[in-house]
Amino acid sequence: MRVLAIAVAVLLMNALNISAADPAPAKVKRYGKVIGVRAEKLEEYKRLHASVWPEVNAMLRACNMRNFSIFLRKLPDGKHYLFMYFEYTGTDLDADSKKMAADPTTQRWWKLTDPCQEPLPDRKTGDWWADMEEVCHND
Amino acid sequence: MRVLAIAVAVLLMNALNISAADPAPAKVKRYGKVIGVRAEKLEEYKRLHASVWPEVNAMLRACNMRNFSIFLRKLPDGKHYLFMYFEYTGTDLDADSKKMAADPTTQRWWKLTDPCQEPLPDRKTGDWWADMEEVCHND
Repeated sequence: MRVLAIAVAVLLMNALNISAADPAPAKVKRYGKVIGVRAEKLEEYKRLHASVWPEVNAMLRACNMRNFSIFLRKLPDGKHYLFMYFEYTGTDLDADSKKMAADPTTQRWWKLTDPCQEPLPDRKTGDWWADMEEVCHND
Repeated sequence: MRVLAIAVAVLLMNALNISAADPAPAKVKRYGKVIGVRAEKLEEYKRLHASVWPEVNAMLRACNMRNFSIFLRKLPDGKHYLFMYFEYTGTDLDADSKKMAADPTTQRWWKLTDPCQEPLPDRKTGDWWADMEEVCHND
């Protein structure tokens, strides 16, 4: 009976052209990262991100980074910080990160965004955004 | 042919007991929030969150807050901060927040976690965690 119900649903999805593609992958790893943003570049950073280039977003997806968000907040030290959250659905983040870094359009994008940012002094060598530690998660 | 392929996939899902339930809702709103964590309470906070009470997690879901994560990072001011990310799938966050705050188990949980935290002085009146501003998002 359950099989029949799902089969009917699938036929309906097909009729309505709703794709069953892109299901939740078996294993998703969540990432949280942080970086400073220069006060004098804050408005420029926000303006750039109000319309991120479609190629930059497409490259994020191509590198298996989905559900990607950046949040902004001024903290008690008087400085502004950016907080990045995304879910990685691939199997080799290092390789995917290198693929992204090699993309000419992404490089042009970073030439605009990097000068807005002020990386944390104690980030890992080779990193730009600093990794945060996941304390808890609930689906 | 496409219908057949999807039908076979669904039969496989059924055989493997993979549910097609809980699809992405029509409208999801993402939230990012931040709060300080007291240095002397850092380990206690992490210990508590290594095994969040199941009732607390269930209440999050019951209040339409899904994909909930908390990240931790020490920032250049030498203090530690917690960054919360979640997706709200309901239609009245205020009502759902009140429902959560009225739950006795959640209240007991907060009696343990609140003393670990140091809210931002410039948070909105009535808030505990301070809202962050979403700068960009890519599905």
